[in-house]
Amino acid sequence: MSLFAQIQKPTLLLDTAATKRNINRLSQKALQYGVHFRPHFKTHQSAEIGAWFRPAGVNAITVSSLDMAQYFYQNGWDDITLAFPVNLRQIDAINSLATRIRLGLLVESEETIRYLTERLAVPVDVWIKVDTGNGRTGIAWDNPVTLSKLASQIHAGKPLRFQGLLTHAGQTYRAHTPAEICQVYEESVQRINQARDALAGLGEKAALVSVGDTPAASLCPPGRVDELRPGNFVFFDAQQLQLGSCRVEDVSIAVACPVVACHPERNELVVYGGAIHLSNDFLVEDGRRVYGYVALPEGERWGAPLPGAYVRGLSQEHGIVHLEAQDLEGIHPGDLICILPAHSCLTVTAMKKFLTLDGKVITTMNQ
Amino acid sequence: MSLFAQIQKPTLLLDTAATKRNINRLSQKALQYGVHFRPHFKTHQSAEIGAWFRPAGVNAITVSSLDMAQYFYQNGWDDITLAFPVNLRQIDAINSLATRIRLGLLVESEETIRYLTERLAVPVDVWIKVDTGNGRTGIAWDNPVTLSKLASQIHAGKPLRFQGLLTHAGQTYRAHTPAEICQVYEESVQRINQARDALAGLGEKAALVSVGDTPAASLCPPGRVDELRPGNFVFFDAQQLQLGSCRVEDVSIAVACPVVACHPERNELVVYGGAIHLSNDFLVEDGRRVYGYVALPEGERWGAPLPGAYVRGLSQEHGIVHLEAQDLEGIHPGDLICILPAHSCLTVTAMKKFLTLDGKVITTMNQ
Repeated sequence: MSLFAQIQKPTLLLDTAATKRNINRLSQKALQYGVHFRPHFKTHQSAEIGAWFRPAGVNAITVSSLDMAQYFYQNGWDDITLAFPVNLRQIDAINSLATRIRLGLLVESEETIRYLTERLAVPVDVWIKVDTGNGRTGIAWDNPVTLSKLASQIHAGKPLRFQGLLTHAGQTYRAHTPAEICQVYEESVQRINQARDALAGLGEKAALVSVGDTPAASLCPPGRVDELRPGNFVFFDAQQLQLGSCRVEDVSIAVACPVVACHPERNELVVYGGAIHLSNDFLVEDGRRVYGYVALPEGERWGAPLPGAYVRGLSQEHGIVHLEAQDLEGIHPGDLICILPAHSCLTVTAMKKFLTLDGKVITTMNQ
Repeated sequence: MSLFAQIQKPTLLLDTAATKRNINRLSQKALQYGVHFRPHFKTHQSAEIGAWFRPAGVNAITVSSLDMAQYFYQNGWDDITLAFPVNLRQIDAINSLATRIRLGLLVESEETIRYLTERLAVPVDVWIKVDTGNGRTGIAWDNPVTLSKLASQIHAGKPLRFQGLLTHAGQTYRAHTPAEICQVYEESVQRINQARDALAGLGEKAALVSVGDTPAASLCPPGRVDELRPGNFVFFDAQQLQLGSCRVEDVSIAVACPVVACHPERNELVVYGGAIHLSNDFLVEDGRRVYGYVALPEGERWGAPLPGAYVRGLSQEHGIVHLEAQDLEGIHPGDLICILPAHSCLTVTAMKKFLTLDGKVITTMNQ
């Protein structure tokens, strides 16, 4: 049976070849620049897809939760940074995992370092989370006094192995062009190095610098950093397309959704495929919310995004899709359309598994 | 161990007593008005919580997907309306389920009715989906020609038992006060009855009218309708609080989230609890996005929402929480806060299971 003939409900399609190309492209870039590559596995959350990184030379990974760290440990990964401010309530599970693998944790307060110093049973790597302008969390790059205090406290804490400074320059997602992305990224790298140099000036041991966001990792030279931790690049999505971080053919997932109603009077389709499938993330384009781009099945893959078409709204199970009049003609209830999600990480979490273009199911930690 | 002492990661708390009060309140209201009550189970998605509706006299339910219909059939429900435009690609599963239970389907096109007439192996109830102003999907209420054509086609289709007209007046969610909600609802009821009367005038058999949205079901007299299908009222949420559909003590779920970082310099906390836990739904208040209200643990429940506190942003696992300065004092990494989600249906889908205030786990179809 052809790929699309077997699909009955919202289904997350995966282009294996494009995904492997994405993995290899960024692995080779890191190698070329001599930067350690520790890809973030929160985007795919899949042991099988994780294994595709091995031939590209990847042996160390990043995750966003302890559950995810445990899942990848159980699937053979033994060098994992949990790139999320450490959750002290999971100290027992952290201790258990840290006896088995090389575990990296993020800290950003004296209280947390004190707690870890008292309660950790085995050594862990520790990174100070630095805010270089994203405004989500971390110690401000221009606060060397606090950074130095934390670094000294980490050095004094027996089970803590100070690694350096880690940032996520999420502000690149607020840029509008590749040039602007690289400008924002360079500023972030300059800032975290300012913090690194300030620490050195205050007599602290040399600190490594770890950064990671897909727009900059895809588009810009890494600069003076030691480690790259992007995640989204494995699949990309509509947001990355909008930013210019990837080409159309690099977007390697799409959600196939059955058409359940047609409203030619307002150039809209209703599909079975809502917020519980795609997540509610959106990008803003021409002043409107875009929950995904729209393509049609072509052979055993989806085609190019239809110009002017977009998902304009989502409720729990409904997707409301705008199509230009000429594209609407010939689409009927029971047909399929393919949605390139606004944000692939959240779509993968919601969908829990993939169907490859040759009909194989690939699971994630959520399935 | 106390409830909160055992919580290590984002946990969906359920106040059983408040939930049962919510169920009984609306069941009794429907009984009092002589309207058939067919609650929507997409909000809780749980066999165990579904069973709490039985003592309130509920024997018929609404669901939003065939998977959900199958789950509740397996848990003893045999009169189910699938309130979503029928997905023709699932015809085999529809036939299989329709041999076992009384199944209701929604149609809104000649093509769909023709397909069902040809392919249905057993009789099903059929409702025409009517749009009374929500603008999501359905036939416009003021289009009696199309409505009559579809009704005639249903009558002529052997396995199709015409039930009547069904609408979801989701436009009540765009109202701002209880008075406005009832005004919008009354307009919707007037419109669907205009459609019903037009059908009768065109010689069609008498049509039932089914409606359902939590704001109006909670606040307004049902008016001239035969069936009520609200769902969210079982738990309510921040959006319903904002609308005035419920009282603070009626909100019967909250997500307990560990605090992982404190930023008193900008009156913010970072919690472990992001879009994959709460969903990305938000309400708009004073011009800003609010992804949830914030309360503190009090004994074995959460307290009242803290004035001025709200979840201002979510990424995959992070929640960024604004608190007033006096509430921030005394909160440390490792503490818990409780988030009243913006939209409980999506939060329950994301979290997959509940922990009751007395420490019992309740599963959903997603767990």
